[in-house]
Amino acid sequence: MNIEKTIEWIKIDELNGFSRMIDQTLIPYEYKKVDIKTSNDIFSAIKTMIVRGAPAIGIAGAHGVCLGAIEALNKEDFIEETKKTAQYINSSRPTAVNLAWAINEQLKVLEENKDKNPKEIVKLLIENAIKLEDEDIEINKKIGDYGAEIIPQGATILTHCNAGGLATVGYGTALGVVRSAWAKDKTIKVFADETRPRQQGARLTTYELTRDGIDTTLITDGMGAYFMNKKMIDVVVVGADRIALNGDSANKIGTYMVAIAAKYHNIPFYIAAPKSTIDPSIKTGEEIVIELRNKEEVTIINDKPICTDKVNVINPSFDVTPNELIAGIITEYGIFKPNEIYKLFE
Amino acid sequence: MNIEKTIEWIKIDELNGFSRMIDQTLIPYEYKKVDIKTSNDIFSAIKTMIVRGAPAIGIAGAHGVCLGAIEALNKEDFIEETKKTAQYINSSRPTAVNLAWAINEQLKVLEENKDKNPKEIVKLLIENAIKLEDEDIEINKKIGDYGAEIIPQGATILTHCNAGGLATVGYGTALGVVRSAWAKDKTIKVFADETRPRQQGARLTTYELTRDGIDTTLITDGMGAYFMNKKMIDVVVVGADRIALNGDSANKIGTYMVAIAAKYHNIPFYIAAPKSTIDPSIKTGEEIVIELRNKEEVTIINDKPICTDKVNVINPSFDVTPNELIAGIITEYGIFKPNEIYKLFE
Repeated sequence: MNIEKTIEWIKIDELNGFSRMIDQTLIPYEYKKVDIKTSNDIFSAIKTMIVRGAPAIGIAGAHGVCLGAIEALNKEDFIEETKKTAQYINSSRPTAVNLAWAINEQLKVLEENKDKNPKEIVKLLIENAIKLEDEDIEINKKIGDYGAEIIPQGATILTHCNAGGLATVGYGTALGVVRSAWAKDKTIKVFADETRPRQQGARLTTYELTRDGIDTTLITDGMGAYFMNKKMIDVVVVGADRIALNGDSANKIGTYMVAIAAKYHNIPFYIAAPKSTIDPSIKTGEEIVIELRNKEEVTIINDKPICTDKVNVINPSFDVTPNELIAGIITEYGIFKPNEIYKLFE
Repeated sequence: MNIEKTIEWIKIDELNGFSRMIDQTLIPYEYKKVDIKTSNDIFSAIKTMIVRGAPAIGIAGAHGVCLGAIEALNKEDFIEETKKTAQYINSSRPTAVNLAWAINEQLKVLEENKDKNPKEIVKLLIENAIKLEDEDIEINKKIGDYGAEIIPQGATILTHCNAGGLATVGYGTALGVVRSAWAKDKTIKVFADETRPRQQGARLTTYELTRDGIDTTLITDGMGAYFMNKKMIDVVVVGADRIALNGDSANKIGTYMVAIAAKYHNIPFYIAAPKSTIDPSIKTGEEIVIELRNKEEVTIINDKPICTDKVNVINPSFDVTPNELIAGIITEYGIFKPNEIYKLFE
């Protein structure tokens, strides 16, 4: 399968280049790539969600460190300046751990080669960023292939938000499972939650699945339980932004309600995510910091308010699904019971 | 309390008049009343949700029968023509039983007086419609007062959709409970679900509660469980569109997911509805017909699509919450366990 990258490093030469990414705020109206050429613009692209999806923002972070290093080339303290930029980019979004993970992978390169000359280090950072891109696709394919095994023949899969090709370098995690299942069985179907406030399900998931020819039904976030009750959903598969060592999983707000509804209807609920989404530094989901985003994401849709301006809003961008609601976590190393996911770090 | 009626019969004289109602499709942008002067336009006003909310569409139905009778005054078979109009209006929306109930109340007047002359019957139908309006407000106040007893001091109440003054002639059912509780305790707060697809929570509930000065927070439909988990929700109160004899309750799509989440967090979930919402002809919620509405309610917001047009949509307007998830049904006769609600008909 030839996969077009959602985000990739474009080489000008060994010491120069930039990050090219699909502007996801324009989908489904426009499919356009933007070139991000400074570390500051990487920060903004992550913050404003031009690039989103835990694995994809990880790669954006890795690119940001490359750009930071290029910008620091003529500065006195190359290493310290690059580290500072890395830290700054890492602060753009707090919940998805893949950002911190990918930046850390770059910081390892920096640390291990700190005695080399800066130009050499820049080359190595760029090489490493491209390696992370390619690995992301390989990892997703493995997740997809393991995950396809738990999709029954002719199943209807409910998913929330977008854990697709657009959330990764390509192929997707939860939607990677869908793609691998569909490659074997063209009768599977997908129900996609709209995923308010930012509607990644409506705007992105239905876009990328229907483009592949996969039968996709859009529902609002309040409808999942109705269709579960009607026995129209066989399995739930979603992505994750940070997984604790006990398997508690943070994902896009609304996931937790879907998981509770799935449990109530005895429908298996799976997380699909690479090992890099697991944060070995935290024991349970209670330690996961939940990003609060702005009021307007809730109150304004398509440039028009949907409510009086006298209302309060709290806009948590993620919630945490406890391990007891999760049937399994699908990784590139196989499918784990949530309370056994820690074994990946033993 | 002086309550402005959401919908009321405007008398021109004893034999003439029309239905004046708030156009709820314009809120929160505009607060405008429209005058509906034919039975056909009543049908359309209900169908297009200019008037919505189970008790309010009941009154619209009663007005529609008045208009149908006025239109039939010079026709040969006055009684049959009026009945035909009543039946037609009753078909405008299938789930809320209050429409059928109120139309039936009018048909009783028709039947009991069928030997009188048509003009006399029109007068009686108009009188009865106005009586139903006034009774609706009284009933809501009783529901509010009973319901206020189950609202703890300083509680935060989660509600879904709009079961407010706008859904009734005035005061509201679920929001009647909020109003009565707030009259006693100014520290209570409300969390309002947006309620996709039509956003009655965002557009109507936040509008009417903030206008009364009640502290209201708008959340998206996927957020309820997050706030329950954070112990920020003390009780859930919603309305209903049809209640079976075993207490199973149909309400706006999304209610069922909230009820499941409330059960998971041990938070009491209440229905607030008048006796006229109970359908004594059905034993369980499985018999409730769920209205399926058009695709565009899901795919278009503020006149702009939110997704590719290649996607399928199923748009059920209601779901059924089973009695096991309901702590109590708050009626004008007191609060009943769902499995005891049948006693109202003994």
